[in-house]
Order: sequence, then structure tokens, then C-alpha cells
Amino acid sequence: MTGKLYGVGIGPGDPELITIKAKRILGEADVIAVPKTAAEKTSQALDIAGDVVEKGKELLELLFPMSFDEEVLAKSWELAAAQIRDKLQKGLNVAFITLGDPTVYSTYMYIHKQLHREGYAAEIIPGIASFCASAARAGISLGENREAIAIIPSAYEFENLERVLKTFDNVVLMKVSKSLSKLEEILKTEQLLDKSVLVSKCGMEDERIEFDWHSLTEEKTSYFSTIIVKKNGVR
Amino acid sequence: MTGKLYGVGIGPGDPELITIKAKRILGEADVIAVPKTAAEKTSQALDIAGDVVEKGKELLELLFPMSFDEEVLAKSWELAAAQIRDKLQKGLNVAFITLGDPTVYSTYMYIHKQLHREGYAAEIIPGIASFCASAARAGISLGENREAIAIIPSAYEFENLERVLKTFDNVVLMKVSKSLSKLEEILKTEQLLDKSVLVSKCGMEDERIEFDWHSLTEEKTSYFSTIIVKKNGVR
Repeated sequence: MTGKLYGVGIGPGDPELITIKAKRILGEADVIAVPKTAAEKTSQALDIAGDVVEKGKELLELLFPMSFDEEVLAKSWELAAAQIRDKLQKGLNVAFITLGDPTVYSTYMYIHKQLHREGYAAEIIPGIASFCASAARAGISLGENREAIAIIPSAYEFENLERVLKTFDNVVLMKVSKSLSKLEEILKTEQLLDKSVLVSKCGMEDERIEFDWHSLTEEKTSYFSTIIVKKNGVR
Repeated sequence: MTGKLYGVGIGPGDPELITIKAKRILGEADVIAVPKTAAEKTSQALDIAGDVVEKGKELLELLFPMSFDEEVLAKSWELAAAQIRDKLQKGLNVAFITLGDPTVYSTYMYIHKQLHREGYAAEIIPGIASFCASAARAGISLGENREAIAIIPSAYEFENLERVLKTFDNVVLMKVSKSLSKLEEILKTEQLLDKSVLVSKCGMEDERIEFDWHSLTEEKTSYFSTIIVKKNGVR
């Protein structure tokens, strides 16, 4: 019998935001697949989930370089799938830890689709999505009553933002650091600047929650920064 | 000293999808605030979180009738806030359990805003959002790479759906049971019918995942049904 693959969401950063189910699956799995952006770096996912992974458990390091080159990315997915396939073929169950929630912009899904297509059993264990945790830390809702929510993962290149800001009561803009001044201009024009909040490194030690984020410079703002815009206000 | 209020997300239904933090807060709280839709009914939230609430812990039942009447709703929030305020004034910490994630369409937020405005300490503990869990159960992502996501909570009355389907690669339609035939028509026109999946009662015993949901009747479909539309496909 081949093993089973689990894509385990471990939440946005606070180790306590791991679910009871994720903890159990990580305990039962034979192998923990650990994504890294570079061989010499530590794994951010393992830093968070470390306490719930027993010492001595087999770790399988997978390399996913930060790249926009589709060929580089496809090659890294293929290699990671091969590393996991090898374990599954030996009958070992593999738990792939992933930041936040696996269904929200995770690299895990490429591996999941590939191995599932090949006939391997694969299951997704949900985690706390970063935008839910960010809203919680800012003390606001993502949406109330009948309000719609838009989630824009790469704000720096999204083209229909003005239109989306007109249609949606709530807009989540992720990875905003590269486009703070452009976003400031757009939100000012739409009279939404004082109805927005920036959350960076949610749940980490150096977390920041900034209602006056327009005074920040792009250089000093983390890549992992999210702006939440709410027509009904954020305070 | 007054007590502190916690809004605790307990996830979509599977008790194992409660976080370690939520479990701890429920253990430490003096009072568990339990939302109900009618006095004679059981609380769905307590059904889910029951196992992590110690026997003998003080329960505070709050009544939130299912209503579209704004006056009825406002009155129920006011009464619930008063019940909680009374406990906080006595120095008791109150944990308000709420389905899914507190920042995603929860009644808790109205109480949170009110009591926070009055100066009480209040903290939101995130939970697994139902749409994340639904995508996980269907084995699909909510969004990949640079794709945007739209979340429409009351599909039956949303007016800009065609436009949103053109702008967004991924659209989550909640509470679809009342408008299945209308949605079928719109998705057929947009050639997205075979790129959608319906998930109802996610994580419950009678959960359903239907790729051919257009054969379902509105009467036989749960109110808690969600359709996820993905331009890149759902299979």
C-alpha cells in the first residue's frame, strides 16, 4: 500500500493557532515535508510548527526558490513531488506543512494536484488564513451581513483596483510593500484612506498594526504586509 | 478590574478544527457565551465546541433570532451585550464561541464593537473560515499565484455577479440554496458551470460535495451551501 499525503495548514505564525487536527496529523505522519526558500535558510513553517513535531521525526526538506521564472518554479514543484512520491511509494504517510491555509495561495496545491492526479490519496487540513488573523489582530471584521469581500494577492500589479473598490465593501490587499504610494493615491481618490489599516507580520514578534500606514516608506515595510479596506470604517 | 471578552472562532463543524489557542481560552474563561437562534433549540456552536468546554463551566445563553428585521436584530445584540457586560463588570472573563472565523460574517462582531467602544478589553481569536474548509474538502484551492478571490455572502441578492465573474478568477458564493436555478443560468452563460463545485454542511456528518450540483433542487439543498467557481477548473 502506498502512503497518504496531507497538506497541513499551520496558520499565520502563532504556534497556538495550529488546529488540534493538524497537531494530530503531524504526530501520526511518518515524514514531515518542510518547505524552504533556500538550502542554507531555516524553514519558516518549521519554526512555527516545530513544537508540535516530535524530535527524531523524519524531515524531508523541499526547496522552493523565490522566483517569478515559471520554468524555475515548475522544476522545483516537479522535484518536490518526486521526493514525496518516493516516500509514498514506500508506504509512508507524509505531512507537508504550509503557512496559513493550504487553499490560499500555497505552493502545496501544485504538489497536491500532481500527486492526486497520479492516484495517490491526498487530503487538505485547513489552517487559519493570514487575512483572517490580520483582521482579528486589527479588531475588525473582513465582512458583515451582506457585504462582499475581495482578496487581491499581488496588489502591486492588479489593474482593476478602482473598480473593485467601487463594487466591494471590503477589500484585502496582500503584498502591498512595493506599491504603498500608488495605493495611497488610489485610496485617497476613492476617499478610503482613513478606512484602511495595514497589518504586517501578523502574529510574529515584530507584528505591526498601522492605521496611519501612509506615513510609512516602502523600504521599511515588510513584504508580508496586508492592507484591509472597509467602507464602513476600521476604527 | 473588569473582565475581558474573547470572540473565539471554533471552525466550520469538525471539533478537531478548533485551534490550540481557542481550546486554551475556553479552558481559562470564567464564562462561555453561547449563541442560539431560539431558546428551545440547542446551540450549534456548543455542539461543536462541547468537548473542549469543561463540565460545570458557567454557560451564558445569548439569543440571536434568525431575522431580517433590523430592529429585531439590533435589540438582540443590545440584550446580548448587556448580558456580557454584566459578567465583565463582575471581573469575569467571557469567551463567546462563534462558528467559523469571528471576522467572517459573525454576529459576534456587533457585540465586540459595542463593548470595545465602551472601553472593555476584547480580543478576537481566529478560527477556520467555512470557505477555506469547503475548498479543502473539495480538494481545490481558493486562489493560486496572482489570482484574485471574491466572496459573496448572499448570492441570492447580489446584483453584479456577471461582472464579478469576469473580473475574478475565483468566486465563492455563500447561501446559494435559494438561487440555484438563477446561478445555473448565469454560470452557463459565462461558460463556468463545469468549473464550479457545491459544498454543503462542510465537515458535518451529512456533508455533500457536488460537482454536478445543477441537477439538485433548491428544496433539497441546505441553506448552508457554498458554490466555489474557479476559472482554472475544479477537477
